[in-house]
Formats: sequence, C-alpha cells, structure tokens
Amino acid sequence: MALIVQKYGGTSIAGPERIKKVARRIIETKKRGNKVVIVVSAPGDTTDKLTETARQITPSPTDREMDMLLATGEQMSIALLAMAIHALGEEAVSLTGGQGGIVTDETFSNAKIRKIDTKKIEKELSKDRIVIVAGFQGITAKKDITTLGRGGSDLTAVALASVLKADQCEVYTDVAGVYTADPRIVPDARKIDRISYDEMLELASLGAQVMVPRSIQVANRFGVDIHVRSSFNDEEGTVITKEVSKMEGVVVSGVAYDKDLVKVAITDVPDRPGIAAKIFGALGAGKVNVDMIIQSSAQGGVNDISFTVNRGDLNKVLDIMGKVKQEIGAKGLVYDEGVAKVSIVGVGMKTHSGVASKMFSALAEEDVNIEMISTSEIKISCVIKEKDTEKAVRAIHRKFALAKTPRKGRK
Amino acid sequence: MALIVQKYGGTSIAGPERIKKVARRIIETKKRGNKVVIVVSAPGDTTDKLTETARQITPSPTDREMDMLLATGEQMSIALLAMAIHALGEEAVSLTGGQGGIVTDETFSNAKIRKIDTKKIEKELSKDRIVIVAGFQGITAKKDITTLGRGGSDLTAVALASVLKADQCEVYTDVAGVYTADPRIVPDARKIDRISYDEMLELASLGAQVMVPRSIQVANRFGVDIHVRSSFNDEEGTVITKEVSKMEGVVVSGVAYDKDLVKVAITDVPDRPGIAAKIFGALGAGKVNVDMIIQSSAQGGVNDISFTVNRGDLNKVLDIMGKVKQEIGAKGLVYDEGVAKVSIVGVGMKTHSGVASKMFSALAEEDVNIEMISTSEIKISCVIKEKDTEKAVRAIHRKFALAKTPRKGRK
Repeated sequence: MALIVQKYGGTSIAGPERIKKVARRIIETKKRGNKVVIVVSAPGDTTDKLTETARQITPSPTDREMDMLLATGEQMSIALLAMAIHALGEEAVSLTGGQGGIVTDETFSNAKIRKIDTKKIEKELSKDRIVIVAGFQGITAKKDITTLGRGGSDLTAVALASVLKADQCEVYTDVAGVYTADPRIVPDARKIDRISYDEMLELASLGAQVMVPRSIQVANRFGVDIHVRSSFNDEEGTVITKEVSKMEGVVVSGVAYDKDLVKVAITDVPDRPGIAAKIFGALGAGKVNVDMIIQSSAQGGVNDISFTVNRGDLNKVLDIMGKVKQEIGAKGLVYDEGVAKVSIVGVGMKTHSGVASKMFSALAEEDVNIEMISTSEIKISCVIKEKDTEKAVRAIHRKFALAKTPRKGRK
Repeated sequence: MALIVQKYGGTSIAGPERIKKVARRIIETKKRGNKVVIVVSAPGDTTDKLTETARQITPSPTDREMDMLLATGEQMSIALLAMAIHALGEEAVSLTGGQGGIVTDETFSNAKIRKIDTKKIEKELSKDRIVIVAGFQGITAKKDITTLGRGGSDLTAVALASVLKADQCEVYTDVAGVYTADPRIVPDARKIDRISYDEMLELASLGAQVMVPRSIQVANRFGVDIHVRSSFNDEEGTVITKEVSKMEGVVVSGVAYDKDLVKVAITDVPDRPGIAAKIFGALGAGKVNVDMIIQSSAQGGVNDISFTVNRGDLNKVLDIMGKVKQEIGAKGLVYDEGVAKVSIVGVGMKTHSGVASKMFSALAEEDVNIEMISTSEIKISCVIKEKDTEKAVRAIHRKFALAKTPRKGRK
C-alpha cells in the first residue's frame, strides 16, 4: 500500500464545485489502494482578502497577529474539503498545521519547520482515513500559530512527504506542469516530463512561477520527487527529481523571464579598493537581495557599478544608495524600471560549449540589446529592455528548438 | 488593580472602524488601571457566511468539520482586534480558545466547558498585556477544535470571569441593556438598571434576545455579575445579578414575547391513564422541546391535548404525532402557526396577588383572546394570536406602568 501526499493550491479549491472535484480526485486516489495525505492552501483569493482587511486596521500589523489571521484561510480549506469528502461517503479528518504536528521556530510570517511530529497523522491513517493538513502553517513550541511564508503550502507537502516517507508527492496547481517557456508568450512551448532540482531551482528563482525555491531545496535535500500537475485534468505533469539522464543534444531545458526587477547604477565611482564592499555591504545590511552586478572597466580612475534588485525594494535601495553615494564620493545614481531578465536553464550547458553565443545571436537577430549578462553552471541570464521580453523569449525558444525536442527521462 | 472581562459581540466589531473603536474603549479601560481580558465573537455576519459556504458543499456537514470551519471566525476577530490595539501603541496578545486554555468535552457544535487552564492568560496579564481570547470555541483533551453552540461567546466571557475571579464582566452588544419591553414595539420601554438571574433567565427563554439562558445559568452558579451594555456609547446598561432588593410596588420587571412557536393539538384523545406520558415521551425521544401543555377537561370520555413547540420542530412533531395518534386512538391532529406568546416576568409576583388578573384584563380590554396560559413563580405567559402580539405587549406594558416605574437596585 503506497502513501501519497497531494497538495492542492488555492485556485484548485476556489469555490464549492472545485472543492467537490478535488474531493472526488482524492477519493479515486485512495480507492486505487493508497493511503492519502492532503495538503491545502487557502481557497482562491482568501489570503489577499485577509491581508487587505488587516491593512484597513493598520498599515503595519504585527507578524504574530498577521499569522493568527492568515492561518484561518487554510483552516477553512481543510474543513470544507473534509466535508466534501464525507459527503461522498469516505472518511476524512482535517488537521491544522499545529494538530498535524508541524513545529516551527518563532519567526512569525516566515517560520522554518523545526520538526514534524507525525503521530497524529499516522494514527488517523491507520484508521483508514484521508488526512487533510492545513498547508503554510505550524505552531511554535509555545503553541503560537506561525506561517511559513511564500510557497509555504508546497513546503508543508514536501516536508510531510519526506518525514512520512511517502511514495509520491503530487503538487496540483492551475498549470499542467513546467514548460520550456511561458505558454502565454510562446504558444508552442512544450511541457517538460522530468526536470532536475537544480534546473527547477534556477527556473523558479528566474520567475517561472511554478514553485518557490525553498520547497525545491528541501525536496532536493531529502530526495523527494515532486510531481507538479494540473488539478483540472488527469494528464501527467512534470516530475522534479534528481539529475535526469540526458538525451544527446538536449542542452537547454527552458527559457524563463522576470519582469519584477529594476536596474540601479551608481556612476563615476572612484576606483579604490573596498568601494564594492561598501555598496553591497550597505544593501545587505538593509536586507536587499541583489541579483546581478556589473562593474564597468575603469576609465580615468572612475567606474560605473550597476546591479539589479526586486522592484519592491527600489525605494529602500534609493534611500541606502543616497547615503552610500556621498560616503564613497560617487557622482550619479540612476535607475531603470523598464528592464527585464531572460534566462536559459539546462544541466546540459555544463558540458556543451557555444550555448551562450547561440543565445546572444538569437537576441541579436531580433535587434534586442543586451544590457547585462550573468552566468552560472546551468544558467545564462541577460538583462534587456522590458518591452523586448516577449520577442526575446520567443526567439530563444525557437533558436534552441525547444518545442521540437521531447526530453525523455528515466520514467 | 481590578480585573475586568469584556465581551464584544459580532456587530460591535463588524468592519475596521468598529474594531478600532472597540480597541480605543479597551485601552481606556486598561489606562484606568485595570487588567483586561477581552472575549470576541466572529465579526458581523461571518458565521452565517461560513455556514452558507459549508451548505454549498453538503447539506449535512459533519459537526467536527463545521466547528473547524466556524472557529476561524473568532480567530479572525482576535487577530484584527490585537492589531488595532497594537496600532494604538498598547501591548495585546490574541489567543484562540485552545490557547486560552478552554478545554471542552467532545460534543462538537455544542460543547460544554470542562475546565479552563488559566496559566497562559495569567502569564500574559502579568506582562501587562491586554489578553484577547476567541469566544465560542475550545479544544478537547485530544486537541480537536470545538464550538460551544448558541451564545457561546457570552459563555466564554462568563466562564473566564468566574475562573479568573474578575471584578467585572461586561458584555457589549448592539442594545443598551435589558428593557421592560422590546423598544421597537413599545417606544417608552425603560432600560432596567438591575435584574436578577432568575428574571433574566425567564426573559431570555421567553425571547428577549439579550443573552441565552446557558450563560446566565453559569453566571448564577458562580455568582458572576454581568453588565450588559452598548458598545456604541458609554451609558450604563443592565447589571444581571443575584436577587435585587425591590422597591415597594415593583412587581413586574418586564414584558417579553416570542413568535417562534407553533401550537399543536391532538383531539378526541381517549381519557385513559398513560396517554400524556405516551405523547410527551415520544416527543422527548425525538429531542423536541415542548413548552406549554394544556389538557382540556374531559367531555364524554375524550380529551383535547394542546402544546407549543418551536416552529423549527414542526415537521418533526407532525411525523412523531402522526404515529402516536394511531397508537393512542386519537381522532384529530391540528396545528396553528399563527400564534405568539406574551409573558410578564418579575420576582415581585411571588408575594403579590392579583398580577395574573391584571395581565388578563389588560388583554381583554384590547379584545385579545387568550388561548393558553402557563405560570411559574416569577412568570405568567399567555398564548395569543400572532397578529395581536404588538397590541398585547403595549397594553400589558401600560397596565403595569412599566415606563414610569424606575426600578432601583443596590447600586
């Protein structure tokens, strides 16, 4: 008898009809002879609505109370889903994060799972019940309610799959899996059957909104295969797993883009040791995540230093850099919100040369100017004008013939 | 330093502005040098909305899951109220029923409080924090979430006031207190300053919707004075307390009415021993609460037996009585939904004669026909035609000069 962990996102359970549909799918899974543990997010836009309600009370709610408030979203989901399963004649029991044994540290709003006490879940499974656990939440050792931050429900599912030694971890979402590019931009984008944790990590951090990096890191560390698939049909999705055997010639797995960034440049910086440390030390102290950094070659003893940050951090960055600029004696501080980042990802790059130049020529052929470049072992990213994003993604996808390269793993 | 328990109902915290207003009132109470424990209900119509959502999933949700769902309502309230207090610069901490130490039995949807572990509340009070506890909910010894049933938040407040040995228990609501009659019907109805538990119990069970009987019984048992008052102004409300000293001539405290009933009659019942036992035994087995019972005098060896039940029980009653009628050989079964009950309540009745006849003559002067009568030590009730309700209440209120009789207690 296999143990399957299934996670359903907010859109999968938005409204009574979808909840009933999910209930039927869960029961089918159980009737195929499996033990089933379900993790659910808050329904639809509940979390946004609760956040908005809090903002009407105060612009800066305390983290503990925000967690107390937001945790109600998943608690609604587990109750409603359990009811739907009961109505179909199966036994099910809902558990809050705390009841499910998920113990976290005390970092409200972004808590880390410290341990999972599986006794209660295992006891309910042994009674042949479907166990439904609230995602995204846990409790501290002092019994305070915490939430796990962005992508927290995926993390709950992966962590439960790990400690329960589940045979499968399925993440149901509103997309059919991981694609070679955003299908809204590239109509012939192809669904990837299998992808490695490392590639998925790069895609996730590059703006492919399937899973947040944290859950993938945990899955990688504990060797949990994640099957990302659609809750609206029965098609196979994408399995995220350890490095998959590559077919000859499959170098690039997919193209990602990210418009949520802004380029900041500090100009005419004196060419002295310690300047970069001062700039990025100050940004780090301000908890700003800096993505790409470019330092132009010195001309007449001055440099330009450019970097990209998340758009939401712009005001904070301008504050910090205004002060740093004076300290280091730089002349200018400029920023450009009209940029985007396009990237290609693939473990095949490590062993294939010429990948970067192929990407650059794809962009050049479309007259897309490259403003910044960064590379890693399995990724090449270019910052371009935001207005060129769609054109660039399509050109790269075509250049690497991603639509035509069915990538087979060891299924 | 006094300890004050305050309970705020759903209408008092419906929407951000009301929540902020309640927060200010709580802070004022604390700044007067008190320790403060707050109990809140779910905001506005949240409970109704959640119930409706559940019904869209299944017409008969399981009690455990319904409690899991409904408990989110109060959890939202405590979080939002704590945020509002924080925003005004005071320390506050929200606690779910379970975190507040409220342990119940396992009767989901209508749980009874078994014990209250006050350690956590007392610890937070000792840190000079305002403690906000979710009303209406608790947890079982097995950590399942339960709800306390109708009026559960009042019960939470009264129970906490009792175990914490609070100096005051204030119940804030959308009415200014307990009135001599429903002010919507009797414009010159007077707010009562003090009323005894017994009188309030009769008024509550007779349809004066201020507090459910259960909370008053608990307050009575543990000697907790309840101050019912409006959350929309600072006026004194009504203190429910042990029997208050009566002024000369104050016999009747108030007039209540109840339209939520139906009169059922079973006619031509053979006049044999054991018939009534059979009828009301069957209704009791069906968990139907029977209120008034009248058996007409026997004529030719047959009786008519009439009784009143809650309107919601009518279908069940007709089912049960259809069977019983055959068993006992009665001829007819009729019912009348067009009835109401008007009642007067007052501890002074015990020692004053002529109260009943005064009430009956008030009704007679308005041509209101009395269909059934029942009396207790402190109450007289008459079943009349529903259409006569308002006229009857006004006539009785006038006859006993309730608007003009300021009732003074030992304030």
